[in-house]
Amino acid sequence: MDAISILACGGTLDKDYDPLRGELVFSQSHLPTLLAQANHTLPLSVNAVMLKDSLMMDDTDRESIYQACLADHSEQIVITHGTDTMPETAIYIADRLANLPHKTLVLTGAMRPFQLGQSDASFNLGAALMAAQLLPAGVYLVMNGQVFLARQVQKDRARGVFVPKRSA
Amino acid sequence: MDAISILACGGTLDKDYDPLRGELVFSQSHLPTLLAQANHTLPLSVNAVMLKDSLMMDDTDRESIYQACLADHSEQIVITHGTDTMPETAIYIADRLANLPHKTLVLTGAMRPFQLGQSDASFNLGAALMAAQLLPAGVYLVMNGQVFLARQVQKDRARGVFVPKRSA
Amino acid sequence: MDAISILACGGTLDKDYDPLRGELVFSQSHLPTLLAQANHTLPLSVNAVMLKDSLMMDDTDRESIYQACLADHSEQIVITHGTDTMPETAIYIADRLANLPHKTLVLTGAMRPFQLGQSDASFNLGAALMAAQLLPAGVYLVMNGQVFLARQVQKDRARGVFVPKRSA
Amino acid sequence: MDAISILACGGTLDKDYDPLRGELVFSQSHLPTLLAQANHTLPLSVNAVMLKDSLMMDDTDRESIYQACLADHSEQIVITHGTDTMPETAIYIADRLANLPHKTLVLTGAMRPFQLGQSDASFNLGAALMAAQLLPAGVYLVMNGQVFLARQVQKDRARGVFVPKRSA
Repeated sequence: MDAISILACGGTLDKDYDPLRGELVFSQSHLPTLLAQANHTLPLSVNAVMLKDSLMMDDTDRESIYQACLADHSEQIVITHGTDTMPETAIYIADRLANLPHKTLVLTGAMRPFQLGQSDASFNLGAALMAAQLLPAGVYLVMNGQVFLARQVQKDRARGVFVPKRSA
Repeated sequence: MDAISILACGGTLDKDYDPLRGELVFSQSHLPTLLAQANHTLPLSVNAVMLKDSLMMDDTDRESIYQACLADHSEQIVITHGTDTMPETAIYIADRLANLPHKTLVLTGAMRPFQLGQSDASFNLGAALMAAQLLPAGVYLVMNGQVFLARQVQKDRARGVFVPKRSA
Repeated sequence: MDAISILACGGTLDKDYDPLRGELVFSQSHLPTLLAQANHTLPLSVNAVMLKDSLMMDDTDRESIYQACLADHSEQIVITHGTDTMPETAIYIADRLANLPHKTLVLTGAMRPFQLGQSDASFNLGAALMAAQLLPAGVYLVMNGQVFLARQVQKDRARGVFVPKRSA
Repeated sequence: MDAISILACGGTLDKDYDPLRGELVFSQSHLPTLLAQANHTLPLSVNAVMLKDSLMMDDTDRESIYQACLADHSEQIVITHGTDTMPETAIYIADRLANLPHKTLVLTGAMRPFQLGQSDASFNLGAALMAAQLLPAGVYLVMNGQVFLARQVQKDRARGVFVPKRSA
């Protein structure tokens, strides 16, 4: 079995509560704890590309994520990412997919931080890792139990879920 | 999108601690709580077929589970089940697959009860629901982030994980 | 046994994460859930006076809390409150203690919300309810496993704990 | 401030779920994790005397616990213990109280293991540590938010709570 790569790029999934500041912050990726609980046997490598709120990401960040995908030898890559601009990053990578032949790239994240309990993070990561193994090469977004193509999804901010993109 | 069905059949996933007896018992399925946390948008129906330790299951129970699959109109069915005899039930259904045309059936479960926290249940259910949507008709077992064919998997009890079946 | 009263006044203890806004907010008091987990047998009444960040409280709020203490028939009162101005409210009530004869008033709270897991809320509330039963009439602050007199405590914001007040 | 001692003697509080055996077992004391969450500032020492189900304890075990109390230099001692025979151990120590002058000894425990989440352990330990600081020398049992004298308490097994002992 070939190795699967997880590229941690921050987002709500990886935030935690800072009791001194009374707000949510990034300190480290909590994916190793999540994956240990998951009791998985996948040949996984986990690398932190950045720990960033996706509202704060610009194309320089998206280029960094794309370069991390380029440099990664795995053909199955899961990218954990903030939900607010997840579709933008998906499209940024999809626009350069010709340079990423044979790679299945799946973006996922969470609406509630893993460290806060009662989170959707483990469910989403289980779904994303399965999708990365079963889907053909391409760029996908996996959230809410569903799989979307990179260019055909948008976030419904009022409901906090992803839905098919309305055509212009 | 067609509906997906979850058939709850018990197992560790659905056990909880009974403080009066000091042991793990079944009271009700906790899948509704798990699915609410998962923030999913799938057209799901959840039905409890039985809440049973899979070590206590016999072919009468397996026939009940198979009959529930037969009666279910969904083409994508996830069966939550105890891990100890999950492969036996998978084979029981696979032996009758000719009567279940067009159906993708995925068995999953957990090594630690959902209600006890730090559980693999949400990760496994996320993976199983994704596999049910992406795999062709057939009977599968999804655990530890991996997908196995019904006849090609066994539990490694010493490690608490599923592995490819050794050929006889 | 006489009844004990809990007056919920907000603070970190009662905040929860709002996935749509991505921040911590008040929706309802989570004390009933905390108390159910605690498996207590005390004759408790729980009343929400306000759900407010204590940095946002002014003397109008402190007067409301004091009036709620005056109106309460219990002689043992626990007040859950934000940590940032907990000493100020304690002193506000202590200044009016002559109007609250025979009452033992204990302020407590949490540095991490109960709803986020891994919280100090249950430990603090257990300590505060015990202190309210054992201490003589007066105004106290119970945090970090310790009991302080109202006028002799301050928050060490850098460490996130309460310490004896330095004399001027 | 004098040091407070916690003597860990097992019981439900310190059990955890073993996924390989599918049952609750002792591996190590989880009090350090509980106390870290509690954010306490007490001068505490924690020592594991034994990790045992209190239904399995006999007078040899009670003698070991009593000897640990004798050897302990703290005047405030909290003993974590299984609930089923907590009153028996409390009386065993109370019978030898003349040898433990100036010591306040408080037994506590939990009905649901700390490691399983939604536990009463933190609430009970917060209450017990406060009671140890405020009560005069003697042997007490702190559970369900209440304090009982060693000889005046019994467990109501049907309800899973402690109640005053019925006189003979």
